[in-house]
Amino acid sequence: MYEIYELPSFHLDGGAVLDPARLAYRTYGELNATRTNAVLFPTWFAGDHTSNEWLIGPGKALDPRKYFIIVPNLFGNGLSSSPSNTPPPHAAADFPTITIRDNVRAQHRLVTEHFGIERLALVLGCSMGALQTYQWAVSHPNMVERALPYCGSPRTSPHNAVFIESLRAALTLDAAFDGGRYQEPPLAGIRAFARIYAGWGFSQAFYWEEAWRRLGFGSREEFVIGFWEANFIGQDANNLLAMLRTWQDADVSGTPGHDGDIEAALGSIQAKLIALPAEKDLYFPPEDEVRAVRHIPNGEVRVIPGIWGHMSGGGANPADAAFIDAAVRELLAAPSPVAVPAT
Amino acid sequence: MYEIYELPSFHLDGGAVLDPARLAYRTYGELNATRTNAVLFPTWFAGDHTSNEWLIGPGKALDPRKYFIIVPNLFGNGLSSSPSNTPPPHAAADFPTITIRDNVRAQHRLVTEHFGIERLALVLGCSMGALQTYQWAVSHPNMVERALPYCGSPRTSPHNAVFIESLRAALTLDAAFDGGRYQEPPLAGIRAFARIYAGWGFSQAFYWEEAWRRLGFGSREEFVIGFWEANFIGQDANNLLAMLRTWQDADVSGTPGHDGDIEAALGSIQAKLIALPAEKDLYFPPEDEVRAVRHIPNGEVRVIPGIWGHMSGGGANPADAAFIDAAVRELLAAPSPVAVPAT
Repeated sequence: MYEIYELPSFHLDGGAVLDPARLAYRTYGELNATRTNAVLFPTWFAGDHTSNEWLIGPGKALDPRKYFIIVPNLFGNGLSSSPSNTPPPHAAADFPTITIRDNVRAQHRLVTEHFGIERLALVLGCSMGALQTYQWAVSHPNMVERALPYCGSPRTSPHNAVFIESLRAALTLDAAFDGGRYQEPPLAGIRAFARIYAGWGFSQAFYWEEAWRRLGFGSREEFVIGFWEANFIGQDANNLLAMLRTWQDADVSGTPGHDGDIEAALGSIQAKLIALPAEKDLYFPPEDEVRAVRHIPNGEVRVIPGIWGHMSGGGANPADAAFIDAAVRELLAAPSPVAVPAT
Repeated sequence: MYEIYELPSFHLDGGAVLDPARLAYRTYGELNATRTNAVLFPTWFAGDHTSNEWLIGPGKALDPRKYFIIVPNLFGNGLSSSPSNTPPPHAAADFPTITIRDNVRAQHRLVTEHFGIERLALVLGCSMGALQTYQWAVSHPNMVERALPYCGSPRTSPHNAVFIESLRAALTLDAAFDGGRYQEPPLAGIRAFARIYAGWGFSQAFYWEEAWRRLGFGSREEFVIGFWEANFIGQDANNLLAMLRTWQDADVSGTPGHDGDIEAALGSIQAKLIALPAEKDLYFPPEDEVRAVRHIPNGEVRVIPGIWGHMSGGGANPADAAFIDAAVRELLAAPSPVAVPAT
């Protein structure tokens, strides 16, 4: 169950106009009278609002009895405007490039115009959700009181881009893909895509220790098929490519006013920020966060320890989930350096 | 320039017989009168004897004025018996599975029967060359005085296998591959293969620091095309797949007499052994060597520091090349615990 917020004549950074753009979202909890308990929690690559629900609930840091949690779906994910659900002239292979800033701009309108919220107690997100979190903190420094990007970075690193390009190369190699004009899904391409992902999503040690057994699989091959292929096989290929493009282009230094200066962009963040990279994340390695957070005035890096790699942020490993929940709790309890305006 | 050693009716572990198997090799330097100065230096995936030449030369540890260095080419590399050069019934897609032990058995015959060598002062190799090095030390513990595997492991780890499977999935996805019966090379598949490799072969930090500039490239895309695609585009697809199979199946614990017991297999190694994993190798990470070498009586791990990842072993980075050369020099100067037989 989710809502749709329509944005008529929504101008994208790339020049195209979605009329309307449709932003799918779900909320948890109630907005309080002073509109000061809102949390924004954007979604990750190929996920949707339900992907974040493991971190939301009574007794958790993101307790809907206390907070009003808005989970907007990433453009391209099949619920928000995507190749698979947009009519011509922007349907399927003709879907325009969408940036992280496009996502944030649409979310900003939902938050301010639809909900009348002027400040966010917290923005958080995993992976592409973290890309959006950083962008929020840069685009709206006086609005984001706290930020918690996990397993993600303020810009997509060059190595990460190489990984993304390999995914794209495999998916589009399937003859059935037909330049995005497929009638039937390019399943072999999606399977190859999933197999590439399988190597990057968890750490070397995760496989060595056969930790996939804790996810209920009996063999590595069963895991690659039952977890990775299953995760992508039902996705629309053009949707996957649209989200990959958004991911690859992410860079807060491109925010208007910062002119490509990453240090200036990061330096403009006012939020109290805790970045949680995962120890063995192979495509968002902790070194990227250490490098970035150095320039964030109220920023701190805490490494999620262990062998789950990028998927530490996925919620499937109880220890990692507890680590993230504890950081969210601590951050929400901390005062924010962002000045509260007179109400 | 290289020689061919023919092995009539060569029985492979998988049951097939190559009649003959052809082992391509090149030697550097002269065998001394006591036949005690031989060094064996097997090759890596998709390489050949020339790939090792950066570590051989006057003034280097592997000085051909002092040592007789034999570089055997890996089966499947296009010079030794391979899908591309073997007549029916074992041509192309019908080429049989070849193991690391098959390679070592053929090399052992070259060394003992052709050259009359009874002991090797050193066996060393990078990546798949390291797989062969470990196998030599396990299969012939009384013959290998010293061993220096670098950027490789005694068995292919499960994570490494996931990486290999993604390469195979991409290459075979190209419709032009046609189950290995291609008339024209499946270039798109090989390009996707190369793009996957590009993410694994160097570290995240290598790309971050644009260290590819030191290889003469002007942009990351130029590097991916000019280095990675160029490295694989001239290779035969069935050859690549044959070598991948050999790589994926590597495991010294399968050596007859060890019955799958990796600790016993490693414990049987008599050579003085120095393993050189690279700090940021993404598919042969140092942790694998630390885990393995614990069980090798005269074994030691030294991590090649820096950002070149797996390609630290490739010879292109002077600091890494010097590190490896220094280790070879030290190892060759050290006494071997392997008893020298009366001559």
